[in-house]
Amino acid sequence: MIRYLKTDPWKIIEEGFNPQHHQSSESIFSLGNGKFGQRANHEEKYSGKHLQGSYVAGVYYPDKTLVGWWKNGYPEYFAKVLNATAWSIIHVHVNGEELDLAVTPVKDFVRELDMQRGLLTRSFTACFANGVECKVITQRFLSMHNENIAAIRYSITPLNAPATITFHSQLDGVVKNHDSNYDEMFWESIHQEVSQGSGSVVTRTKKTAFELAVAMCHEMQGVAWKSDEVAPAQVSSTFEGKFAVGEDAVLYKYVGIENSLYQSKERVNAVAQAHAATALQEGYETLLQAHTAAWARVWEMGDIVINGDDEAQQGIRFNIFHLNQTYTGKDARLNIGPKGFTGEKYGGSTYWDTEAYCIPFYMATKNQEVARQLLNYRHVQLEKAIENAAKLGFNNGAALYPMVTMNGEECHNEWEITFEEIHRNGAIAYAIYNYTRYTGDESYVMEKGWEVLLGIARFWAQRVHWSEQKSLYVMHGVTGPNEYENNVNNNWYTSYLAVWCLKYASSILHQLKAHDETAFAAGCHKWQLDWNQTSAQWQDIIEKMYLPQKEGSSIFLQQDGFLDKVLMPAAELDSAERPINQHWSWDRILRSCFIKQADVLQGIYFFEEDFDLATIQANFDFYEPMTVHESSLSPCVHSILAAKLGYEEKAVEMYMRTSRLDLDDYNHEAHEGLHITSMAGTWMAVVQGFGGMRVKGDQLTFQPILPTQWESYQFRVNHRGVVKEVNVSKDGVRIEEVKGVAAS
Amino acid sequence: MIRYLKTDPWKIIEEGFNPQHHQSSESIFSLGNGKFGQRANHEEKYSGKHLQGSYVAGVYYPDKTLVGWWKNGYPEYFAKVLNATAWSIIHVHVNGEELDLAVTPVKDFVRELDMQRGLLTRSFTACFANGVECKVITQRFLSMHNENIAAIRYSITPLNAPATITFHSQLDGVVKNHDSNYDEMFWESIHQEVSQGSGSVVTRTKKTAFELAVAMCHEMQGVAWKSDEVAPAQVSSTFEGKFAVGEDAVLYKYVGIENSLYQSKERVNAVAQAHAATALQEGYETLLQAHTAAWARVWEMGDIVINGDDEAQQGIRFNIFHLNQTYTGKDARLNIGPKGFTGEKYGGSTYWDTEAYCIPFYMATKNQEVARQLLNYRHVQLEKAIENAAKLGFNNGAALYPMVTMNGEECHNEWEITFEEIHRNGAIAYAIYNYTRYTGDESYVMEKGWEVLLGIARFWAQRVHWSEQKSLYVMHGVTGPNEYENNVNNNWYTSYLAVWCLKYASSILHQLKAHDETAFAAGCHKWQLDWNQTSAQWQDIIEKMYLPQKEGSSIFLQQDGFLDKVLMPAAELDSAERPINQHWSWDRILRSCFIKQADVLQGIYFFEEDFDLATIQANFDFYEPMTVHESSLSPCVHSILAAKLGYEEKAVEMYMRTSRLDLDDYNHEAHEGLHITSMAGTWMAVVQGFGGMRVKGDQLTFQPILPTQWESYQFRVNHRGVVKEVNVSKDGVRIEEVKGVAAS
Repeated sequence: MIRYLKTDPWKIIEEGFNPQHHQSSESIFSLGNGKFGQRANHEEKYSGKHLQGSYVAGVYYPDKTLVGWWKNGYPEYFAKVLNATAWSIIHVHVNGEELDLAVTPVKDFVRELDMQRGLLTRSFTACFANGVECKVITQRFLSMHNENIAAIRYSITPLNAPATITFHSQLDGVVKNHDSNYDEMFWESIHQEVSQGSGSVVTRTKKTAFELAVAMCHEMQGVAWKSDEVAPAQVSSTFEGKFAVGEDAVLYKYVGIENSLYQSKERVNAVAQAHAATALQEGYETLLQAHTAAWARVWEMGDIVINGDDEAQQGIRFNIFHLNQTYTGKDARLNIGPKGFTGEKYGGSTYWDTEAYCIPFYMATKNQEVARQLLNYRHVQLEKAIENAAKLGFNNGAALYPMVTMNGEECHNEWEITFEEIHRNGAIAYAIYNYTRYTGDESYVMEKGWEVLLGIARFWAQRVHWSEQKSLYVMHGVTGPNEYENNVNNNWYTSYLAVWCLKYASSILHQLKAHDETAFAAGCHKWQLDWNQTSAQWQDIIEKMYLPQKEGSSIFLQQDGFLDKVLMPAAELDSAERPINQHWSWDRILRSCFIKQADVLQGIYFFEEDFDLATIQANFDFYEPMTVHESSLSPCVHSILAAKLGYEEKAVEMYMRTSRLDLDDYNHEAHEGLHITSMAGTWMAVVQGFGGMRVKGDQLTFQPILPTQWESYQFRVNHRGVVKEVNVSKDGVRIEEVKGVAAS
Repeated sequence: MIRYLKTDPWKIIEEGFNPQHHQSSESIFSLGNGKFGQRANHEEKYSGKHLQGSYVAGVYYPDKTLVGWWKNGYPEYFAKVLNATAWSIIHVHVNGEELDLAVTPVKDFVRELDMQRGLLTRSFTACFANGVECKVITQRFLSMHNENIAAIRYSITPLNAPATITFHSQLDGVVKNHDSNYDEMFWESIHQEVSQGSGSVVTRTKKTAFELAVAMCHEMQGVAWKSDEVAPAQVSSTFEGKFAVGEDAVLYKYVGIENSLYQSKERVNAVAQAHAATALQEGYETLLQAHTAAWARVWEMGDIVINGDDEAQQGIRFNIFHLNQTYTGKDARLNIGPKGFTGEKYGGSTYWDTEAYCIPFYMATKNQEVARQLLNYRHVQLEKAIENAAKLGFNNGAALYPMVTMNGEECHNEWEITFEEIHRNGAIAYAIYNYTRYTGDESYVMEKGWEVLLGIARFWAQRVHWSEQKSLYVMHGVTGPNEYENNVNNNWYTSYLAVWCLKYASSILHQLKAHDETAFAAGCHKWQLDWNQTSAQWQDIIEKMYLPQKEGSSIFLQQDGFLDKVLMPAAELDSAERPINQHWSWDRILRSCFIKQADVLQGIYFFEEDFDLATIQANFDFYEPMTVHESSLSPCVHSILAAKLGYEEKAVEMYMRTSRLDLDDYNHEAHEGLHITSMAGTWMAVVQGFGGMRVKGDQLTFQPILPTQWESYQFRVNHRGVVKEVNVSKDGVRIEEVKGVAAS
């Protein structure tokens, strides 16, 4: 745990510049608006360690797979969200000396992310070697109102001597992904132009041929335009002025962004320029006002208030803030990358995290169309999932969704995950069920979802096999959510989920048949489905699936052979060896009993209604002590179950861990980017955990608990168009409908 | 199976040039003499697909590891034998037109490897576009008499018109490994010189700083020296003459090689030049005579004669020939790379193949010092094996030998193999036992081997763990020799071998103690060994180790859960899907019952005396049908067991498969290099399989069978300094001592 940021209910504050944490700060203070995002890179030159990063949603590059030992079925490419034209650069010189926080000493440095307004501010006093001291205040935002616009206000004021101040504002399209497998450039330059401080750069991705245009305009206060510079994929403009002590030099930089997902290639440059020009015309304050108002609407619906514990409060808002920056649900082609726009790890692609963790958040805090769009994303990619399964030897329309994907094709290349972590298929089916049950909207599953369910069920029916020895169906060679076990037989979670999928798909198909016999017949024809035979086969598996359980107990076994391990609590591990994935060799991790993330408990969380409380408790008590939570997706599920079981202390511990995972950098990896998808799990920990929210038929029910150290907490959920506010305090629980607030 | 070579008892013959098989031919016709080796690259330019390859034993480079997803414990480097200065190049022009078999049509092409003499010959008629036709005859050898010398005789004769013939003979040190992970150069140029046709090139490996000098001299017949050319790490000389029809232009190229493993860096160049000069002075015929005489001595001891089946005869000689080309046992720093000098795959490093397959061959066909040297190789690397085990979390002197190594450090980077295929440790212990029992030489194990055994036994004692559930010791997370199962629990072979190691180490240490109490106490002190405690702990494991077995039968289970698989014979597989490792995704292979190579049967082969014939038969009958033999190391073990069981047809089928694996290219990979180490398995298939040779106490015993289609076969073995000849014919078996023949 690393703690260098101040606690505040609405703000993230760094007091004093911490170069050693700067890369983490760049992630933590990132901004985004669903369409593009920007790490908190300093505007001015910074020669210290940092990771320059501007990312644009949906614009990807198929980087050639890097692999030690090739296995059949590995994909040729790993699609990656691209580090794109850097637009936040404003280099600063004072009397010819460059400002560089790795060189120039600074005083009173404060970096502040105002989450309420989506505004990043820095202020400090720079002490130049030439003797001049200047006050610097920078501010920027990526508009939530107009998602094609960003704005920066850069002000610098001499404090002790008059000075010449020079701004050198750039757009730099010569950018390389830090995670490029073979150190290749993914972009080529197409066009650049600049004239009197207004300019633009157009670049095109190799292979995928996306075009991206970034334009800039400037508004000056005290400085005057001096010159423009142009090079392939790079433009810049220089502004300069002489300033008396106390006199402000201010540069406003307005940035417009557009790409060929939204505009024809002929138009992207003109449109980006128009965005920048519009921004200049509207002016900084007007833009900021519209942006702040948009954030206010987000918070009005989505905020969670926790009174009496500022760390808990700051944590949950940090999570909600970043989720809203990452994905706004406006574009069906987009999804939620595990790092959002805050880093490059994991390629920015789609994982099962979306279905298992993110959908509940977006479903309850947004219009239900947003969740439907996320479901639709997988329906659109069904054909690719069928192709993917065919590559692995499955047939007859069996669908295996990829572990990682951008366009439906598999990107991942570790056999134990790519080929074996097939439980992802179940989460995708579960999300359909979850959406339908929560929203009451049966139209998705009836129109499209059933096809996804059919493909998935067909996969499971082929993936199990009959064990003569057991006289039961078994499932070999899988990796569960607990990736600290590979290639195991009969992973309880995966097998349970598979059976559930067969049941659910079966019931949906029966429903479809009952509802419209003709349409069903057409569907059977389309998918070459002999329903009677298939239904019987599925039923046989449902009835005869082997699900490992500890003899004479209600403990479900994570997999065959689990009880043969040396079982010991993680608390007994030497803290110098934690996290074990940074200290132990892989075989040692695999042989140990230690669990990376909820596995059996993930299943119990999904299908809570199938188990009595004693069973839930027995399994929690058995598995939780062996769980090291080295996946960001682990603590939230434990927090929810702990809350249900009345383990308040554990629930709060797990909640703090998930909500402050990046703020307190538990796993020493915030510098690579934030854990965006697990942030939705944090939301679940409050709403489903402490709030005890469940769906019962057409109703939401709540069984709240109030952690001792909290005074009260409050959240709102959108349920079928009605916004409900839940307020839990020492005085009791108040649930009421909120009028005049709509989830957008 | 690909068959384009002629069958002949002593020769490998290619009639008609097959460009589509040229890369395979380059492997099959390779030459070597234990110190260096050369693929059968054409001397003249060849613009078609080929793999230029000159390799020098023991000269390696630590290439940076290539990996998709890093795991703790992976090595930073993969040591690779280096593709070194190309010395066989003689470019040829006729009237200015270059000879290039990818362009110039040829008639009557014959390539012939005379295994008896170690001589590679090509002859053909080249039909130049300029109308001239020439007869070309090339011949070369790498001296087995003076291992620092190679010689080429290149003759070309105009057949239909007088012609100017130009030879352009080169040494080219600008060479890249084809398997370079990051496309880097491993060599830098140090020195080059050339004068009137005599020259040399000195190059140095980056990082490891080995220096290699290659020198050349020429003898001319009809041509005259014309010019020299020099560039960094490259020298060449041009020779030219005018020739009447029927008049021969002949160039003799003498090559001397030396490297800094054997000479100081100051001297390598001079020594290489001296080798070349000596060769020139002795002349081609004298050199060839000495070379042929050296081969005659090898064959006198090591030949196996099979009468009545030329394919079987050619196969076994091909194997014996390449084994002798690869390793001669003269240098304790060298070992037997899986591809020898015939290709780059697997890096040319040392695998468990040496102990499990190669030692019996070298032990019986060479002086026993050769096998002792191979054992010593591991003793020298013991400290590194202890370091390797420590990296994986073991302590107290536990040793885990690497999966792949050049200098004792692990090179491999696939977790399921690097960390889990630990049975290699057992094979290394077994080789000590095997050597001691065969040679009767107890001095190795008493002086050095016991330290290796101690380290290995300590590893096993830590690698097993107590299962509360089973009340037995178990071993989790291993990969057996059958690499088509990964991360399994209780692999019978590995567990059986581990127990055997503990027993053997225990008995040796008891012996040592009984033999010399003081020396033993010193040894205990050196290795911090509390023998009483350790001995008791080992004994406990020996007595309580879990070895999976099919209930109510004598079938040992390959691993936990094996009987839960769908069991079916490989014969039922669609032949279009064979080999499965080229058609199936990895998870599908893992889930299937199909076995890559002998696993349980490998254990039964090693410890045959522990099992009655019915048990051996039951296990063979159970496992062999499921075995796809997609490892080169598989068929030989099956052939031996089949012979023992009287399954003659199966024994012959497996013998043919192992002996002609590369000649008939069963696995479509001869172009990458030959399967050198499995060639020793071929030898075992004849001697231990058909010949039924076993060690019983101080004696060798034989229980030969004669395959129906063979008339007779005959082999010699060196046993404790006495050479015995075994002759098996339809008339019976004759075993006699051969006087006047010594294994060298």
